[in-house]
Amino acid sequence: MNKPIVAVPIGDPAGVGPEIVVKALVDDTVKGCADCLIVGDRKIIEKAIALTGVRLTVHVCQDSGDADFREGVLNLIDLDNIDMTSFEYGKVQAMCGRAAYGYIERSVRLAMDGKAAAVATTPINKEALHAANVPFIGHTEIFGALTGTKDPLTMFETNTPGGVSGLRVFFLTRHLSLLQMLGQIRRDKIVACARECLAALERLGVTGGTMAVAGLNPHCGEHGLFGWEEVNEIAPAVEQLRAEGYNVAGPIGADSVFHQAAQGRYSSVLSLYHDQGHIATKTLDFERTISITNGMPILRTSVDHGTAFDIAGKNRVSEVSMVEAVRLAAKYAPYFTRKQ
Amino acid sequence: MNKPIVAVPIGDPAGVGPEIVVKALVDDTVKGCADCLIVGDRKIIEKAIALTGVRLTVHVCQDSGDADFREGVLNLIDLDNIDMTSFEYGKVQAMCGRAAYGYIERSVRLAMDGKAAAVATTPINKEALHAANVPFIGHTEIFGALTGTKDPLTMFETNTPGGVSGLRVFFLTRHLSLLQMLGQIRRDKIVACARECLAALERLGVTGGTMAVAGLNPHCGEHGLFGWEEVNEIAPAVEQLRAEGYNVAGPIGADSVFHQAAQGRYSSVLSLYHDQGHIATKTLDFERTISITNGMPILRTSVDHGTAFDIAGKNRVSEVSMVEAVRLAAKYAPYFTRKQ
Repeated sequence: MNKPIVAVPIGDPAGVGPEIVVKALVDDTVKGCADCLIVGDRKIIEKAIALTGVRLTVHVCQDSGDADFREGVLNLIDLDNIDMTSFEYGKVQAMCGRAAYGYIERSVRLAMDGKAAAVATTPINKEALHAANVPFIGHTEIFGALTGTKDPLTMFETNTPGGVSGLRVFFLTRHLSLLQMLGQIRRDKIVACARECLAALERLGVTGGTMAVAGLNPHCGEHGLFGWEEVNEIAPAVEQLRAEGYNVAGPIGADSVFHQAAQGRYSSVLSLYHDQGHIATKTLDFERTISITNGMPILRTSVDHGTAFDIAGKNRVSEVSMVEAVRLAAKYAPYFTRKQ
Repeated sequence: MNKPIVAVPIGDPAGVGPEIVVKALVDDTVKGCADCLIVGDRKIIEKAIALTGVRLTVHVCQDSGDADFREGVLNLIDLDNIDMTSFEYGKVQAMCGRAAYGYIERSVRLAMDGKAAAVATTPINKEALHAANVPFIGHTEIFGALTGTKDPLTMFETNTPGGVSGLRVFFLTRHLSLLQMLGQIRRDKIVACARECLAALERLGVTGGTMAVAGLNPHCGEHGLFGWEEVNEIAPAVEQLRAEGYNVAGPIGADSVFHQAAQGRYSSVLSLYHDQGHIATKTLDFERTISITNGMPILRTSVDHGTAFDIAGKNRVSEVSMVEAVRLAAKYAPYFTRKQ
């Protein structure tokens, strides 16, 4: 059986990206589910192999065509863009920001050209991108620009070992103050967002089950006692969606909806603001909260931790998130259908 | 070794309270850590024993003085206040609301008189209290009134089996709309609340460690990019507390602070709003999220689920929360010092 090919850019070379990549490649889950094409710099990868002590031989290739997917081989597209005389772990460096952008760009191209089934990304540094004059603040913006996607849709999926099912969480709003967020709790916006989320799930092959819309206020406002958004905006949005034939429920109190979804009662949750969904997923399982970017022509998963400059180059980082990011990329790749 | 005596009112007789009480009494954890004095109605308790099939003999007593704490004995203070000819499971009944209030009142008196070391409460029904003209909307208000406490302070504690330590969460605000909550994020209020929380922890014997104050906005607002509350109110409050000698840190991003506290990095978290702390604790471990009411002359723990009228009288309820509530009451009872 062919395993899906997952492109993995190594992230900011000064961060923990290279370490989690090489450690994940010797993990049994990753070995069993995917063939990985690493996009990075050979010197950095060799250094990561040496400092983690994993048993891998680097095979430099152009793409999957000349790759060698036998066990123990790390297939590297070597962009050779790091000068080791000035390189330092744990520091914001323009060279590293520029290099990290290059790895992403090549990985996206592999996926767009059909040479990789998905991209699983590793941490990059906002300040390093800025120092390199890369005109984007993060992965989502870069992927949006490189794939011509106006509005990439982030979904979190958490997989706790022994859990009944993965908890999938979408976000109505993200990087806004709580006060600004409150102005976005509008029926039309919820309806439009839920439609997009359900379309994204369908493209991932998730067609059954019910999407729950979280409440905003404590106990969903208790019929207006602690806020009216549920009565005036959220419940009418859910009604409209149901009238349109969508399998949606809510609003469900935010203190129970994530627990219920993690138990398998809902196939996904539409959270209304950044911390609502983040607190749920990351408290449930910090390391196994994976971000999946939907709404693009290509499939992308990502670890949701940062470059961790304080422990970079020290073989102290856990590869659990990276393993999960590759696993989810491989899990959804066979179902994934490109957006028209 | 004497085990602490924990008074347990059986809650609304029409709910799941009586069932979780009798099931918890045969649990090994409860048997090992506490001697329980049940306050309720004999007919209801006999019915709960019959329908759950637990092996318990009811011994009616007045208080701990004439109790029989041998294994297999349920010590009951029988208020004999339910008329079985009209009683029904799963229904709002004024008789049951009145009875539930009576059980709490007697339990509080036992603790106030030093005849119980703590009270572990079970679910009551707001509408039943209302139907019975009990002039309180919930436990916290009843306990406040009966103990002469103006402002009882709720703390959640979650104990996940295998976890490093319990996650303790306090709340700056609770039953307010999110919009009203935003108006409460003020330096003076945070300082006053944190001082109270730390005093409450001290009375529970928790003197070491650091209290973390959660952030309000995504990523703590990123220096004002997504809101200014962290810069203008929360950080100055933490600075003031530290200057006063308190071991407090923050603001810490709400998407990581609960995870870090559950890992043992913080001894408690001050969450800023209802759902922030509730989502964290209940997603982490729904059944093992226990509420501890501080700031009163007596110690009270409580299950944090409701009467579950839909499954009452059907032996379908889990007693895990009740076991935890008794366990925490017994855990803190030896340390608990009355508020002056």
